[in-house]
Amino acid sequence: MTPTPQPDLILYNAEQLVTVDPARMTPDNPLGVIPKGALVIKDGCITALGGTCDFDLPDTTNTIDCTGQILLPGLIDSHTHPVFAGDRSDEFEKRLQGTSYLAIAQAGGGIKKTVAATRKASELELYISAKRRLETMLSFGVTTVETKSGYGLDSNSEEKSLRVLQKLKRELPQTVCVTYMGAHDIPIEYKDHPDSYVDLLCHDQLPKIAEQKLADFCDVFCETGYFSVAQSRRILETARTLGMKLKIHAEEFTDLGGAQLAGELGAVSADHLLHISDDSIQAMKQGGTVATLLPGTAFYLKLPHYAPARKLLDAGIPVALATDFNPGSCMSENIQLIMTLACLNMNMTPAEVIQGVTLNGAKALDLHHDRGSLEVGKRADLACFNASSYNELLYHFGVNHLTSVYIQGRPISF
Amino acid sequence: MTPTPQPDLILYNAEQLVTVDPARMTPDNPLGVIPKGALVIKDGCITALGGTCDFDLPDTTNTIDCTGQILLPGLIDSHTHPVFAGDRSDEFEKRLQGTSYLAIAQAGGGIKKTVAATRKASELELYISAKRRLETMLSFGVTTVETKSGYGLDSNSEEKSLRVLQKLKRELPQTVCVTYMGAHDIPIEYKDHPDSYVDLLCHDQLPKIAEQKLADFCDVFCETGYFSVAQSRRILETARTLGMKLKIHAEEFTDLGGAQLAGELGAVSADHLLHISDDSIQAMKQGGTVATLLPGTAFYLKLPHYAPARKLLDAGIPVALATDFNPGSCMSENIQLIMTLACLNMNMTPAEVIQGVTLNGAKALDLHHDRGSLEVGKRADLACFNASSYNELLYHFGVNHLTSVYIQGRPISF
Repeated sequence: MTPTPQPDLILYNAEQLVTVDPARMTPDNPLGVIPKGALVIKDGCITALGGTCDFDLPDTTNTIDCTGQILLPGLIDSHTHPVFAGDRSDEFEKRLQGTSYLAIAQAGGGIKKTVAATRKASELELYISAKRRLETMLSFGVTTVETKSGYGLDSNSEEKSLRVLQKLKRELPQTVCVTYMGAHDIPIEYKDHPDSYVDLLCHDQLPKIAEQKLADFCDVFCETGYFSVAQSRRILETARTLGMKLKIHAEEFTDLGGAQLAGELGAVSADHLLHISDDSIQAMKQGGTVATLLPGTAFYLKLPHYAPARKLLDAGIPVALATDFNPGSCMSENIQLIMTLACLNMNMTPAEVIQGVTLNGAKALDLHHDRGSLEVGKRADLACFNASSYNELLYHFGVNHLTSVYIQGRPISF
Repeated sequence: MTPTPQPDLILYNAEQLVTVDPARMTPDNPLGVIPKGALVIKDGCITALGGTCDFDLPDTTNTIDCTGQILLPGLIDSHTHPVFAGDRSDEFEKRLQGTSYLAIAQAGGGIKKTVAATRKASELELYISAKRRLETMLSFGVTTVETKSGYGLDSNSEEKSLRVLQKLKRELPQTVCVTYMGAHDIPIEYKDHPDSYVDLLCHDQLPKIAEQKLADFCDVFCETGYFSVAQSRRILETARTLGMKLKIHAEEFTDLGGAQLAGELGAVSADHLLHISDDSIQAMKQGGTVATLLPGTAFYLKLPHYAPARKLLDAGIPVALATDFNPGSCMSENIQLIMTLACLNMNMTPAEVIQGVTLNGAKALDLHHDRGSLEVGKRADLACFNASSYNELLYHFGVNHLTSVYIQGRPISF
C-alpha cells in the first residue's frame, strides 16, 4: 500500500490501530485492529491506513511515531448536559444518607434547583462554565460531543442556553451537536397544568428555535412525573415536522413506553433504558433506533441495576455509551471511566465498549457517514492513548490515558 | 493572629482550609474547616493558620491567592503495590466473562504471572515503571505513599524491589514508606512445602532486609490459600523483633482471623477487612490498629459486598482509605476516585472519607505526629484542589481536581 502523494501527516508504529471498521472486523478481531499500524492524513481526512511496514515514509511529510500508544477514532460522547449554573454538591451527602433522586427533586432540589440558578445566570457565565466542561471532555479524547439545553425551561433561558452551545460549536475545535431539551422537566410555574407547557413548547419555543436554527436535535424526558408518552409524542412529532432529529430519555426509572415511541417515530436514539421491555426492544430495532446507555448514572445514583446491555446487543441493536454529564446524576466528564463502568457493571466486552464510544456513538448522532471509525475518506479525528492494547485502556482505570488528539488531522493543544 | 516574622510563603483566600485538626472538629464542622482560610509556612512547616482576614500580608513574602480552591493536608495513600513488571490486562476480559480472581490465580494468572515477569525484569526497568506510577499518584495530590514489595518472592527479587523503592524514597519529592511483603504469595517452587518458605522468610530474607535497612514495615497476605494465621504470626513476630512495624492483609476473601492477629500483635494497620468478625473488630480496637479499607478492589473485582466501614467507624476504629494500586485487583493510582467509591459504596460521609486519606492515612503509617492535618508545627504538605467545598471534590468524580501540591512548603512541578 502506498500513500497518496504528499500527505499532510503520517502516524505510524501505533501498537494497535483500532479501526472499528466493520469491513475489518472478525470474531477474533472484533475491532478490526491493525497491529503496528500507520495512518495517512490529507486535507483533514484519512487517505490510507495499514501496517507500518507497508508504507514508505516520505522525507517531506510530518511523521509521528506512535510507539507505546494505541490509536482510536476520536471518542464520541453522545449524551451530555453541560449548560447549567449553580452547585448541587450538597445533594451528594443527602443521597448518601439514603434520600432518593426523586425525593430530592420533590423537596425542591434536583433539576428545579439547577433551573432556578440557570435562569438567573448571565449568558457569559453559562458560556464560561460550559466551555470549561467541554474542554475537560476533549482532554479525555472526546472529539464529538452532543450537548443539551434543558435547565432554562422558559423561552428566554432555553434560547440563552442554545446560543451558548452554538457559540461553543463555532469556537471549539471539537464537533458540538446541539439538542433542544425544553422538555427536561415541567417548570414550577406549569406544575398544575403541564399540558399548557407542552402547548408552549410546540407552538412557541420549538418554532422559534427551528427558525433560528439553534438546535440539531430535540430530546424529551419521558418519565413518570415528567412527560407522559402522549406529551412526548406531541413534542417529538412537532420537532420532526420542523426538521429536527429526535432523541428521548426513556425507561430510566420506570417502564413508561418511551423506547417504544422512539422506535415508532424513528428517533435516532433512545437513552438510559434501565427498565426497557422486550416489546420496546423490538420497536427500537424496527425503527433503527440506537440504544444510548449511561452507566455513570446508575453508578452515581446507586441504582439497583444497570441497563440490560447484553439483551440489547443480543437483539442486534447498536449500543452507544455516553457520560450523561449533568449536575444531578452524573457529574463526570470522564468517558474513559464510563467505559470501564460499562465493562464491570453491564458485562459489555472491551470491544463492545469501544464501539459504543466510536462507531455507535456516531450512529447515535447520525454522523457515522464521516466519523466513528478509521476508514479511508472519513475525518481524521483521532485519539491517541498511552497503552499497549485497548484492553489496557479499560483495565487501568481512573487515569487519563490520552496523549494527543487530532481533529480533522490537526493536533489539538491543551 | 499574626504570622511569625518573615514566613516563606502564605496561602490565603482558600474557599475552605480543611484542617482535619481534631481540636477544631465539631459535629457541625467535622473536618475543622476554616472558611476563606490562610496558612503560613516557614522552614517547611506550618507556623500559623486561620481566617484570611486575621492575617497581615507582608510585602516581602511570597503570597498565593487560593480563590476558587480548597486546601487539604497532602493526601496519604497508605497501601499500594507499585513495583512489578508485565501486563495483566488480558485478565480483565476473563474476569468479565465470569472467571473469579482466585480461579485466574489457580490457572497460572494472578500474582504468579506478575512474579514471573518481575523476577525477569531488570532493576532499571522496575524503577522506571514504579517511578511513573508514583508520579501519577502525586499528580492526584498524594504526598505520602506506602509501597510494598511482594512480586519477587525470592531473596534476590525481593531485595531488587526494595532497592527500587529505597531509590525512589531518596529521589522523589513525596514521602515513600517501604514495606517488605515477601509473604504476598507462596512462590511456585514452595507450593508443596509452604512452611519452608516461611522458614526462608524468617531466617534469611527478613534478617538480611533488616540489616540493610531496606524496609520500614512488614506485611503478610493472611488468607485461605496464601498464609495461615500461624504462618502470618511467625513472620510478623520475626519482623517485630527485627524492628519493623507491622501491617497485614486480612479478611479480604474469607474470615480467617488476620485482623484478630493484627490487634493482638499491635500491628499499625489491618487492611481489606471485607469479612471481619465482631470479635476481630474488638481485637483491633484493643491493639490500637487502624483499619485500612480499599474500596477500589471490591469495585474492580465486582465483589458482592464492601468492607463494613460503618461498623468499624461506629466501633471507634480509625478508618484509613487507600487505592491498593496493583496489577491484579485495582489498577488505579487515582485516590480521588477511591474517595468517591468510599462514599457511594461504603456509606462513608465525605468528612470521614477525607479523614481517611489524611489524618487516618497518617495513622496507618504511624506518621500522624508530623502530618495528616493542618496544624501549627506539622509539615507543610498541602494539596490544593479546584473546588468550592470538600463535598464537590467527591461529587464531581472521575476528574483530577488537583491544582497544586506543596511538600514541606515547596511547590512541586509536574
